[in-house]
Amino acid sequence: MSRFTAPRLVLGALSVAALLATGAVQAKDAEPVSPIPAAKVTNPGKVELGKKLFFDPRLSRSGFISCNSCHNLSMGGSDNLKTSIGDKWQKGPINSPTVLNSSLNVAQFWDGRAKDLKEQAGGPIANPGEMAFTHDLAVDLLTSIPQYVAEFKKVFGHDKLTIDEVTQAIAAFEETLVTPNARFDKWLKGDKKAINAQELRGYQLFKSSGCVACHNGPNLGGTSFQKMGLVEAYKTDNPAEGRSAVTGNDAERFNFKVPTLRNVELTYPYFHDGAADTLTQAVDTMGRLQLGKKFTPEENADIVAFLKTLTGDQPKFTLPILPPSSDKTKRPQPFE
Amino acid sequence: MSRFTAPRLVLGALSVAALLATGAVQAKDAEPVSPIPAAKVTNPGKVELGKKLFFDPRLSRSGFISCNSCHNLSMGGSDNLKTSIGDKWQKGPINSPTVLNSSLNVAQFWDGRAKDLKEQAGGPIANPGEMAFTHDLAVDLLTSIPQYVAEFKKVFGHDKLTIDEVTQAIAAFEETLVTPNARFDKWLKGDKKAINAQELRGYQLFKSSGCVACHNGPNLGGTSFQKMGLVEAYKTDNPAEGRSAVTGNDAERFNFKVPTLRNVELTYPYFHDGAADTLTQAVDTMGRLQLGKKFTPEENADIVAFLKTLTGDQPKFTLPILPPSSDKTKRPQPFE
Repeated sequence: MSRFTAPRLVLGALSVAALLATGAVQAKDAEPVSPIPAAKVTNPGKVELGKKLFFDPRLSRSGFISCNSCHNLSMGGSDNLKTSIGDKWQKGPINSPTVLNSSLNVAQFWDGRAKDLKEQAGGPIANPGEMAFTHDLAVDLLTSIPQYVAEFKKVFGHDKLTIDEVTQAIAAFEETLVTPNARFDKWLKGDKKAINAQELRGYQLFKSSGCVACHNGPNLGGTSFQKMGLVEAYKTDNPAEGRSAVTGNDAERFNFKVPTLRNVELTYPYFHDGAADTLTQAVDTMGRLQLGKKFTPEENADIVAFLKTLTGDQPKFTLPILPPSSDKTKRPQPFE
Repeated sequence: MSRFTAPRLVLGALSVAALLATGAVQAKDAEPVSPIPAAKVTNPGKVELGKKLFFDPRLSRSGFISCNSCHNLSMGGSDNLKTSIGDKWQKGPINSPTVLNSSLNVAQFWDGRAKDLKEQAGGPIANPGEMAFTHDLAVDLLTSIPQYVAEFKKVFGHDKLTIDEVTQAIAAFEETLVTPNARFDKWLKGDKKAINAQELRGYQLFKSSGCVACHNGPNLGGTSFQKMGLVEAYKTDNPAEGRSAVTGNDAERFNFKVPTLRNVELTYPYFHDGAADTLTQAVDTMGRLQLGKKFTPEENADIVAFLKTLTGDQPKFTLPILPPSSDKTKRPQPFE
């Protein structure tokens, strides 16, 4: 063994110990799914600022589209559309993934092209098909609003207001958007009456059929990229190619980030192309295409019943009041 | 005098007494403006249901536009756009009036074509240029969502779910959207330090110049229709003709409902065509066109300072979580 091997092994052992300590792996009962931890807010001021930015449509060219337009926190952190509506009613290329529990994902976007929430937050603002603004215009706009300037200064302790502070604040808010206390989590924690017999059968089938191979961990997904259409090819008009568009590796064509199943009852329609309207359809398609398994109607219903136990407490907060534009603020011109 | 005169006089006297009793007229200090009363919630369940409906984009054809899109409660109950964005990004015909304190208006819409909030609420849902749905489709949609069905039943005590119940609930929520405790209201109630010397000068000028002839009462407006361009013609590309389009009376051409000045700091841009970006512009134009008066920069600044004392407590509530669609719910097809 080379002299580099030993330290690497030590690191590996430490990582496992750390995972055990955080409860991400439950050695006790060895369930492949673990409860969602409650949000830990370390900087409430940053979270409040990020909440305002998340709801502020002035970060779009039109003054009409905010982060919340497509990641609507009244609707499971999604827009419940096949693909989203962007600037000038452009048709989005892909289904809007939920922002709920997204801090638990290994990377952001369906193809994982953003390494974290901060990097993700800058994407839609500058995407010509989404909010269609630029980072410079967004910063100019915020700088023209005295209440924002004061709030940024208070939160960050300096006068610099760049897209870095903007996306940091949005990410800090998004990190609080977790949904603990799902009935299934109560069951995981020992409340055996939290789910009923059908829901438990669904979970057992979910495990024994292999769904759990990809949909595991606290977020039941979000930790790996997998090919859509593994056993049988997936037929879609959607041109998204997934992971290969990021890595340039042809072997990763049609590999997408495994979506979380948390709150899946609220985040219809399903798949990267939004083609499945209902959980029944989604379970059927996943069984056939990913596992080579045709679930009976009863089995399908059991799994759907289990999936509905994954709806947790939705983020509860007061609708933010946005600071008004000043006379210097450039007004949006949505029709130009 | 005819035999019909006497009862009419009696009614008139009763009405004045009623106004005095409600505090709408403050006989004591004879100010032409009175404080905004706090909201009285008599049916909290109906208000909660109305709040959900107000935030629910499924009441639009696209599944993307809710009441809150154009009457954004994060932004003074308006969209801060010249004219609103409707279905498929259609350009709206007129500036979106604030929903805040709108229960105090004599009628709804700029031309007063809806007699109250309930009648107003049905308008945008079915307007092909706005939410582009129909009342029947809205009712079908809500009827397909079990949680909504149960909530309507609980609130109204019967199984009937028609557009009448829908608009009643939305109106009940909107009636709570009042903004008491503005600094100016504190001054009106006797706290003489609540506004400063410049703001007081502005109010005195606002009264002595005649602004108050139209912008009076608790809402500083909303109680009458007036011609836009009284002394001097108003030049605009906007084709709206105002009150005459409702009454057919040519003498009422370009008569619009006098907008409230409550929270006017938040509800830019101004006028029915949204042509004035700033309060400074709006005060200048109003002075010249409605009063034949050219305010000096100092006078204008004083009035603007006064107007900014009219920002009250914004409605504070938890963002509603919407009940999920069921398998039977028709999915929106925004691009078709």
